[in-house]
Amino acid sequence: MSEPEKSENIPDESAGKGKEIPNGGNPAKTKEDFDLAAVYVSDAQYNRNIYFDTSPQAVRLYLLYNHWLSKVLLYFFILLDLSLAIFEEPAVFSLPIWATMLVELLCLLAFTIRLVHYAKVIPRDKFWKDPKNICIIVTLMLTLVDMIIYGALKATNCYGVRWSRVLRPLLLINVTEGRQLRRAFRSIRNALPQIFYVFLLFMFSVLIFSLMALKLLGKRGLKTIDGAPYFTNYLEIVFDLYVLVTTANSPDVMMPAYNASFVFAIFFIVYILINTYIFMSVFLAVVYNNYKKYLKEEVRQLVRAKRHKMARAFAVLQEQREEGGELVVTQANWNQVVRLVRPDISNAHRELLWSVSDDKNQGSIGKVAFVQLADLLNIEVITLKSRPHPLHSLCPAFYLSAPSRLLCRIVQHRAFVIVYDLIILVNAVFIGLDEENPMIANSEWVFLALYLLEILLKLYVFEPRAFFSRHSFWNWFDTIIVISALIATIVNSAMKSSGGYTSRQILDIVFILRVLRLIRVVDSIQRFRAIINTLIRIGPMILTFGQLIIVVYYVFAMLGMELFKGKVKFFEDPNDPAKAYCGNPLLKDTAFAQLNYCKNNFNNVVSSFILLLELTVVNQWHVLSSGFATVTHISARIFFVLFHILVVIVIINIFVAFVLEAFFVEYSVDKSDLQTSLERKIEELELAVEQEKMEDNLVNAMETIDNDLGTGQSPTANKPSLMFKIASKRYRTVDALLQRMFEADLDPEDFAENDDQNGNFANPTFSSV
Amino acid sequence: MSEPEKSENIPDESAGKGKEIPNGGNPAKTKEDFDLAAVYVSDAQYNRNIYFDTSPQAVRLYLLYNHWLSKVLLYFFILLDLSLAIFEEPAVFSLPIWATMLVELLCLLAFTIRLVHYAKVIPRDKFWKDPKNICIIVTLMLTLVDMIIYGALKATNCYGVRWSRVLRPLLLINVTEGRQLRRAFRSIRNALPQIFYVFLLFMFSVLIFSLMALKLLGKRGLKTIDGAPYFTNYLEIVFDLYVLVTTANSPDVMMPAYNASFVFAIFFIVYILINTYIFMSVFLAVVYNNYKKYLKEEVRQLVRAKRHKMARAFAVLQEQREEGGELVVTQANWNQVVRLVRPDISNAHRELLWSVSDDKNQGSIGKVAFVQLADLLNIEVITLKSRPHPLHSLCPAFYLSAPSRLLCRIVQHRAFVIVYDLIILVNAVFIGLDEENPMIANSEWVFLALYLLEILLKLYVFEPRAFFSRHSFWNWFDTIIVISALIATIVNSAMKSSGGYTSRQILDIVFILRVLRLIRVVDSIQRFRAIINTLIRIGPMILTFGQLIIVVYYVFAMLGMELFKGKVKFFEDPNDPAKAYCGNPLLKDTAFAQLNYCKNNFNNVVSSFILLLELTVVNQWHVLSSGFATVTHISARIFFVLFHILVVIVIINIFVAFVLEAFFVEYSVDKSDLQTSLERKIEELELAVEQEKMEDNLVNAMETIDNDLGTGQSPTANKPSLMFKIASKRYRTVDALLQRMFEADLDPEDFAENDDQNGNFANPTFSSV
Repeated sequence: MSEPEKSENIPDESAGKGKEIPNGGNPAKTKEDFDLAAVYVSDAQYNRNIYFDTSPQAVRLYLLYNHWLSKVLLYFFILLDLSLAIFEEPAVFSLPIWATMLVELLCLLAFTIRLVHYAKVIPRDKFWKDPKNICIIVTLMLTLVDMIIYGALKATNCYGVRWSRVLRPLLLINVTEGRQLRRAFRSIRNALPQIFYVFLLFMFSVLIFSLMALKLLGKRGLKTIDGAPYFTNYLEIVFDLYVLVTTANSPDVMMPAYNASFVFAIFFIVYILINTYIFMSVFLAVVYNNYKKYLKEEVRQLVRAKRHKMARAFAVLQEQREEGGELVVTQANWNQVVRLVRPDISNAHRELLWSVSDDKNQGSIGKVAFVQLADLLNIEVITLKSRPHPLHSLCPAFYLSAPSRLLCRIVQHRAFVIVYDLIILVNAVFIGLDEENPMIANSEWVFLALYLLEILLKLYVFEPRAFFSRHSFWNWFDTIIVISALIATIVNSAMKSSGGYTSRQILDIVFILRVLRLIRVVDSIQRFRAIINTLIRIGPMILTFGQLIIVVYYVFAMLGMELFKGKVKFFEDPNDPAKAYCGNPLLKDTAFAQLNYCKNNFNNVVSSFILLLELTVVNQWHVLSSGFATVTHISARIFFVLFHILVVIVIINIFVAFVLEAFFVEYSVDKSDLQTSLERKIEELELAVEQEKMEDNLVNAMETIDNDLGTGQSPTANKPSLMFKIASKRYRTVDALLQRMFEADLDPEDFAENDDQNGNFANPTFSSV
Repeated sequence: MSEPEKSENIPDESAGKGKEIPNGGNPAKTKEDFDLAAVYVSDAQYNRNIYFDTSPQAVRLYLLYNHWLSKVLLYFFILLDLSLAIFEEPAVFSLPIWATMLVELLCLLAFTIRLVHYAKVIPRDKFWKDPKNICIIVTLMLTLVDMIIYGALKATNCYGVRWSRVLRPLLLINVTEGRQLRRAFRSIRNALPQIFYVFLLFMFSVLIFSLMALKLLGKRGLKTIDGAPYFTNYLEIVFDLYVLVTTANSPDVMMPAYNASFVFAIFFIVYILINTYIFMSVFLAVVYNNYKKYLKEEVRQLVRAKRHKMARAFAVLQEQREEGGELVVTQANWNQVVRLVRPDISNAHRELLWSVSDDKNQGSIGKVAFVQLADLLNIEVITLKSRPHPLHSLCPAFYLSAPSRLLCRIVQHRAFVIVYDLIILVNAVFIGLDEENPMIANSEWVFLALYLLEILLKLYVFEPRAFFSRHSFWNWFDTIIVISALIATIVNSAMKSSGGYTSRQILDIVFILRVLRLIRVVDSIQRFRAIINTLIRIGPMILTFGQLIIVVYYVFAMLGMELFKGKVKFFEDPNDPAKAYCGNPLLKDTAFAQLNYCKNNFNNVVSSFILLLELTVVNQWHVLSSGFATVTHISARIFFVLFHILVVIVIINIFVAFVLEAFFVEYSVDKSDLQTSLERKIEELELAVEQEKMEDNLVNAMETIDNDLGTGQSPTANKPSLMFKIASKRYRTVDALLQRMFEADLDPEDFAENDDQNGNFANPTFSSV
């Protein structure tokens, strides 16, 4: 699953042979040519590395394959397949076996269709050389076999294990769209050898300290707080000291020795210093270092592949203006392709992109300028249409009257924002107070009215379509929250006044909405906005880690359910005597039962996930693992230690490494060259929105702009009706962010060399690096 | 205390006026000139930035000031002053007030003498402009005032507080030698503004989540495990959720809500995700980013100051060979200065350094080459003397006989190391077994004999002085451990056989020594050695953080002792009924007493330090802080939260940032240019030790070399008797390591510009950066 992307290669020269254009003539481009070029550009833009067939039929199939609907369907079926765990034994909501089996068969069918579709798109030999496809096929076969065996066993009332369930996440990793996830797994695999040696040394240190603890403390007849002998069993000591590294049993593990003499505290201090602080920092350093090293190489390969694909698109579209002249792409052809690739962008925006590419206004561009197109398309340009306010058009006399203009000025004033921030703060205090008090309860209506008034005032001042434009996150947020709160509050009051009955659920929703409203304050403070924007920007990458975590959790949850299901039970009834020991007499008087951890069990997939999350947070994981070891066997601890090593030492460190790296890029890197040239062009064309109005504020920017553009009396009324703004630090794709992270290290001339040795482009494999 | 080093400036031109040399003549250099130049070079080498007077008398005083003995005395008195806390009430070992007061007066006197000495060395106006000196003077005055007040109060049996004790660590920071510590404090101060905004946002998030928790969970009548109402008090919720960020009360704080419905788990999952994982990573990122940014600037300033000092030394020594020719320093003068600066280095080593500086063999060097000297002296060159084995000289017939040569070959064989590694492993198993068994007890003698034999064999084969050379860490380690273990075991057996009495202390020592012996295995494995060498290399910097931690701990310990002394008591007698509630009825049935944390108190300075360490490790810190809040007031939690913010969020993150950065340097940076040129020179002169013999092994290298050089029949016997090897990655000073970390970013031509505008060199202050 974490094999290098062997066959996610880009098509080589031979595949394009049929399209070879004689050097002299310039035959008219067919629709197929444009389709092919558009596919290449689109693949380059989204960094898709699929080695598709270039026959017109295959290209059409490929377009279908990449269609958003087919992708959504695929992810729907993956999700469905994964969520079957909720309904299978041990189930949250139990369904008969035939029902889950039927759904699973449906999923398998969908995956098979998708795979067959993929096989039709790419050449046969490439298909069979791709370990991803083999992996999917094997997974599907094994799942089918398992289903048959399990069905047969169940039919004869035998005990069966649905072992193929652990294979399900493999589908998520191995579908063509799982590239980010595969990359994350590759970074883990690449870091493993280095981590392994540090881990060995770390374990050696733990073992040596344990031996010393055994010799120093084992013979002193000390007792733990439970009265058990203290530090007398070597394996127990190793486990205790391993837990101490995670700090979960500090200072308890030290207390018996410390109570005997404070000299023994020195032993634990040295241990914590070496193993918790130094070794854990070294783990982070090693993971971070490897992560950076390999990611850089991967991104380099990605960029080269992207340029190669663009060169390929260029080869399809190229023509020669004069004999022996440079090969170029004309504006008409370029337009045609861009229209195919991005039907959503406006003509003006397209013209802007063209004028950046065709800097000298020659009507055609060479290869180097053409190759930039993929990156240009990835720069998010906000198109601002200057539209007058509807009221301005409907009754200008009223809208332009002195009171109306004063109102507009008030709403646009900084004080207006401050007043509303103060209202929010007062609201926060009121929320904190007891809502049983009728005065407080009624104040909610006042606040709701105030918030509604704010939205209406803004709608009066700003052009509504601009106010609700795609980038106005906070406007959407506000409106949705306030309207929902209004509806929920009305429903709640209606129910209360009619029957005196208050629905707990609706009240909960009302409370949550009220508190969420307070978040708005953050947006008013420049410094906070900057931090939040950074977090939003690295959001997509965090989602990749989310997928990674889900894959690992899923596998451990399936294993855990088979190993520990039903061993620990939670009783809803507080009077049930079995509740005190989680329904398992073995747990009597253990810390697990005393701390009332009965609901932390593997009895269904939701409980398992929550339990695994608790294990990820680390605290008390020794109590949890000891609990499960008590009800099964001491070796059950291996399951928990393995989980700790994999998730906490490896994955969380990779997560931290990524956040660190992303933050450094945010702090240090400025705009890319291409963005600068695009911005320069926008400014040249006098289409720019004043910079000082934009500040660093992405999400709220539109308000300020619309402010000028929407009100009739704005001094900028004589400006062009269409304006552009680069969403400077936003990335359309995760790859674009990654590329930015290492842009400084990429050779801008790399493309040329790569271009010369057409088709010779290496697989993005890292065995040779 | 964390002010920029305002007056740690280097002397400016005016200070050197008395020494100005007429351009034409070359007067013979006086002893004072050499002394002055040597002081400049030495200051440059160790990055001392003291603005000393250049009169011969002041230089002599300055040499005395920098003498190792006066520094040791200073640190002895600082240590004495700090350790007075052990003997003052609340004391570990109680001493009468007059005794501690007398010692403190002695310390104050010593500091005053040191300060007066410093005042004599530097110009008066510079002395009074330096905030460090003012800080020390104020500290001394306040301490004296406090002592008088306290003495008077005690004499009249009134209650008095020794509040000046919190000021004691200021001395450690503000002495001239505390540069590393001041730098660490400066990095903290520089990072604070950035951290502050993230912290505000983080607290805002905690407050919002708390409000939501109050509204969602407060009215449901849930109970904690103690039966207390769950999430009903807003401030309690804020504290609980703050603790959850540190993971210390996970999953306990979630369990009541989770037991009620698994939907509430979502609230906690989102909370942990945002506040524990994302915000804590952002804290690390912000701290790391600031750390890197400012450190780079500081190092740049340091390097400029160093070059300036070297230019100053050059100005003292310079002479003109011919009229209008370049100003140079002759080899004789150079030798004289180097001899003064580093009397310990051999003539051969000095000649090697000269030949690196005087690359063209002109007998004199210009300014640029001279300035390198400070860095050259910081490169650790291992001088290897090829000496025959004493036995070889005494009875060559025997030593060169066939059996003797066979023995030498066996001992030098790789298998010899492997055999002894296996012996160590077997030994480990024996140590783990029960030592009451007489067979096991006697086996210890066998192992001791084997280890002793190993050392003797090695001494037979290798030249003893080389075997015990300064860099042979593991040889020293082995020998000391084995000899100590032998002595301790003999003493133990003698005591046992004479009176049947076994001293627990001696047995402990024997056990510790036995276990420590096992560490040797690490040295045999190349990968482990590499990791350990990295750790050893960043060791000195870790010590700076150790000082930092001690300063912060000391202040908090002093505060804590005044606030909480005697509130929680530990009873040695297990039958004392007060033991169950730590002697304070308020603690009855609290988690603090139940977990038997009575010894975690502020009743003396040692307990306080251990308690603060437990708080640094974070786990259970809420139990500890709640315990102390119970016995005093709820606001006592502020003390613990402040400690957590300062130590865990700021200092530990800076520590991690440093370890990360140091590791990246180790992984990525190769040798410096100067080291390379020194190595090239060593190779040119054919004085190099074969590289492949050295590998990456610093500490063990000597063994392998002596191996060849020591034994008579070595094929390298015709080599020169003196050989050099650069300890490539070892740094004499912390500054040298820092310089390496940012070397790539330093402009090598910076020196020239700096030199032109003599005396105009800016203070290393960062207000303008």
